[in-house]
Amino acid sequence: MMKRLTLTALALTLAAAPAHADTLVDNVNGITLDKDGKLIRFTGLVIDTQGKVKQLLGRKDKRPERPDFKQDGQGKTLIPGLIDAHGHVMGLGFQLMLLDLSGTNSLAEAQAAIRKYAAENPEMPWIIGSGWNQEKWGLGRFPTAADLDAAVPNRPVWLERVDGHAGWANTAAMTAAKITPASKSPEGGRIEMEGGKPSGVFVDAAMALVNSAKPKPLARDLDRALYLAQQKLLEQGITAIADMGTTIEEWQSYRRAGDKKQLAVRILSYGGDIDNMAIIAGSEPTPWLYDDRLRMVGVKLYLDGALGSRGAWLKAPYSDAPGQKGLPLLTPAQLRNKMVRASMDKFQVAIHAIGDAANAEALDAITDLTADLPGERRWRIEHAQIIDPVDIPRFATLKVIASMQPVHQTSDRVMAEARLGPDRLKGAYAWRSLENAGVRLAFGSDVPVESANPFPGIAAAISRTDDKGEPFGGWRPEEIVTRETALDGFTRTAAFAGFAEDRIGTLMPGMRADFLIVDTDPMLASPDEIRRMTPLETWIGGYRYYKKSEGATVGR
Amino acid sequence: MMKRLTLTALALTLAAAPAHADTLVDNVNGITLDKDGKLIRFTGLVIDTQGKVKQLLGRKDKRPERPDFKQDGQGKTLIPGLIDAHGHVMGLGFQLMLLDLSGTNSLAEAQAAIRKYAAENPEMPWIIGSGWNQEKWGLGRFPTAADLDAAVPNRPVWLERVDGHAGWANTAAMTAAKITPASKSPEGGRIEMEGGKPSGVFVDAAMALVNSAKPKPLARDLDRALYLAQQKLLEQGITAIADMGTTIEEWQSYRRAGDKKQLAVRILSYGGDIDNMAIIAGSEPTPWLYDDRLRMVGVKLYLDGALGSRGAWLKAPYSDAPGQKGLPLLTPAQLRNKMVRASMDKFQVAIHAIGDAANAEALDAITDLTADLPGERRWRIEHAQIIDPVDIPRFATLKVIASMQPVHQTSDRVMAEARLGPDRLKGAYAWRSLENAGVRLAFGSDVPVESANPFPGIAAAISRTDDKGEPFGGWRPEEIVTRETALDGFTRTAAFAGFAEDRIGTLMPGMRADFLIVDTDPMLASPDEIRRMTPLETWIGGYRYYKKSEGATVGR
Repeated sequence: MMKRLTLTALALTLAAAPAHADTLVDNVNGITLDKDGKLIRFTGLVIDTQGKVKQLLGRKDKRPERPDFKQDGQGKTLIPGLIDAHGHVMGLGFQLMLLDLSGTNSLAEAQAAIRKYAAENPEMPWIIGSGWNQEKWGLGRFPTAADLDAAVPNRPVWLERVDGHAGWANTAAMTAAKITPASKSPEGGRIEMEGGKPSGVFVDAAMALVNSAKPKPLARDLDRALYLAQQKLLEQGITAIADMGTTIEEWQSYRRAGDKKQLAVRILSYGGDIDNMAIIAGSEPTPWLYDDRLRMVGVKLYLDGALGSRGAWLKAPYSDAPGQKGLPLLTPAQLRNKMVRASMDKFQVAIHAIGDAANAEALDAITDLTADLPGERRWRIEHAQIIDPVDIPRFATLKVIASMQPVHQTSDRVMAEARLGPDRLKGAYAWRSLENAGVRLAFGSDVPVESANPFPGIAAAISRTDDKGEPFGGWRPEEIVTRETALDGFTRTAAFAGFAEDRIGTLMPGMRADFLIVDTDPMLASPDEIRRMTPLETWIGGYRYYKKSEGATVGR
Repeated sequence: MMKRLTLTALALTLAAAPAHADTLVDNVNGITLDKDGKLIRFTGLVIDTQGKVKQLLGRKDKRPERPDFKQDGQGKTLIPGLIDAHGHVMGLGFQLMLLDLSGTNSLAEAQAAIRKYAAENPEMPWIIGSGWNQEKWGLGRFPTAADLDAAVPNRPVWLERVDGHAGWANTAAMTAAKITPASKSPEGGRIEMEGGKPSGVFVDAAMALVNSAKPKPLARDLDRALYLAQQKLLEQGITAIADMGTTIEEWQSYRRAGDKKQLAVRILSYGGDIDNMAIIAGSEPTPWLYDDRLRMVGVKLYLDGALGSRGAWLKAPYSDAPGQKGLPLLTPAQLRNKMVRASMDKFQVAIHAIGDAANAEALDAITDLTADLPGERRWRIEHAQIIDPVDIPRFATLKVIASMQPVHQTSDRVMAEARLGPDRLKGAYAWRSLENAGVRLAFGSDVPVESANPFPGIAAAISRTDDKGEPFGGWRPEEIVTRETALDGFTRTAAFAGFAEDRIGTLMPGMRADFLIVDTDPMLASPDEIRRMTPLETWIGGYRYYKKSEGATVGR
């Protein structure tokens, strides 16, 4: 995903479709949920001058006589803009800015790509990338710093191997990282040596030696990353995203974009722990800013790690690592203190909990605090991947929102079976069980861990199959949800989960006119067709920001 | 200046005079400079719906027939809103929030005041204040921690003596600061002891032991400080202020106020060194925000200290401290690196330079960089208090703005004579010499070091006399400036110095309607009358935010 957008191009961004008075989008196969979650179909949509839905029209309803702008939908399907209930906006942006070597077939090809990328990105102090594979190149050895110096001698270059388990540095990067022949391999890592000195390749834990020397991104890098992220989200039909763990630096970038009318995608921000929350928002959530484009609504707390690295905190040991249960990242007192600190100031709390012990502890903490914190808190548990079935009803009792990422199920399936063994899979990615217990499901992608594309997520939610359609019939298909629930998770409940249901998530009158024109009706298509769906147009607040034939435009 | 405003009162702020369509303020003795600095008089002012000046009317000009709002000025004087070219908004706010004991006449009175303040400010984690004087109380001894514990036992209390050379802590403050009987007095300071343990009073350098334990202000403290600062500035007729050394925490508070339409006074922000500048504004100055209420335009750098503490950097030793010359706070390379870093990204650079060596070095640095940084930089030197006369023409050649505080001259006079001796006074507070050399003078207050009240500043500028009218005939009266120059320094050039002359600083058509109704014509009154002038009304952007009979209102 190499991008060649320079800062000059940013300034030249074309304006989105201009402001209109009343707009009529007619002749569509329109779909939305109403405020109670009931599916509604319509054939025309009237948008007012504020960019809000004014009216949904049935086939026989009278059309406004002289709308200021009219678009013929040519019978295509129109659905609400999709909301990613859990993502990392800047993570996506930086992923898009990285040099991607996964398509290279030889060292020479890689060197050419690196040289080209460096020339196209003269302001970048370091060239960062990933995707190289010396096996695929037929090199018969690891590449070296000298191989990289030949491409870029004057700036540090640091490239991760395709599997993420090794990094390749040039001499400038090693100098910046103070690597010398005397440098020692750390525990769990290895500095590759050649002729008595570091060769340029650093394996596993040794990668940190170079990573720690990487410069912090500059404001202009963040601004560019945000621009690229927005373009990608618009292309993929995401009109709003919960940004899970915003830093003050990232927030400042969002505000810069907003101040310049270059914030298209709505960002519901959750501060990266209490310190970021407090410096960003102060003593209460921010107002909605920039016509409902940005708000800091709460805080994201990490209670445990991930399943793949066995950081998820389990009640019983990992099936494939006897004795290991993972670890909580917060003590009970720390978790509760942070939750109280945020809640007293009316911030919403979103707790990352993947393992069943972490989920139980998050529920315990919520139980402990509920009496002292009355009111509608909308506690969120992020991921809620592995839940002890006894804990499922507690989500409902405590009115906890389960913020889940359907694609994780398809990506993690084989690994989860190994980590958990058959007995614990009953509460794994247990969408339907949660729903049946009365829990509201908000769906997202966890981008950039997964692609932000919501359509494979919808397909996974209704089929429990991956992009090859496997396993046949779906993995633990009893946890499949309906199409309505899948759509709800990416629209109405994703909005509710961010205290935004009064403005986005459905296309009922009064809501912001955020919608997609798509090439497939997701209520009728096969999971495989849904997976391959793409937006033809993406509209936010009554403006069209993306048209497949023209690309995305962020400014207006 | 004890303030009893609670957070509840903040929320209840009355709205300012509501939005109008065309507004006519008629029958006034109107004064403004035009864009070339020429004094213009008018009798009526028409304001458009954007809050900008639409028309200035002479006595015989036709009035608009049906303005939506009309105010009869009753012949009073109307002048442009005054701009403080150098202040510290939050410094003022926190000064207003502190407990002020300077009016107390006994320990018992002080204890009562402390108890009352603590009760009125239940959220404050520490009670901070100043102004006590055991001599005035006739106490015959220093007060003790026990005396303070009797007033407030459960929260740390920390109060500076009236002269700033001692602090008085209660037991809770000493506990928080980890003060024990084993604590040692630092060099240049003394922990007062009683019965073998610290008594509660800390002298000079020992004050730092407690100061370092004070909590950082919370967002809600910053927000309250901003509210109080705005009220005070509105009362004093300051409609815009250059905030010299904004931190990210302060900036966030300004934005919160702006987001809630509670930013009345215009703030031209200069980041506190490069790190704050970069995190606040990113890779270029921010746009004007909130209808020209807020902008980060540049960076404030400190090149030396102050004259009083002999931190100002002089070419020759202090007259009253042989061998001491003060010290530069930045090396030549550091200063130039910071200047380049800011300027490359189009930030304006404001350099604090008080001593003649600091001023010369600032001019040297500007000289060194000018060729590589073409364009209109508007380099600012802040204070420019002591200038070697040979350096005065360099300000003009390099087009450096001298950002000076007239009241400092009257406050510093006796001290400056002692520090500098007679020979160096020729370039001290040398307003007229700078003006005659062709340098533009921007005037300010350095609040909270001095009061933000601009009228004593204007009086000082045109008389070189203090609030007692001393010395008779003015101190080095050859540096007196004209009334027009004084007004210009607080309006037109103060705006120019912040790249704001296209929107504020005069009342010419198209400019924001920022003005004062005052009780005296400053072009005719005596210096003493000017010193005692007060605004009757303060208008910003066509809204009245302050009326003497009603007080200030920040929200609208």
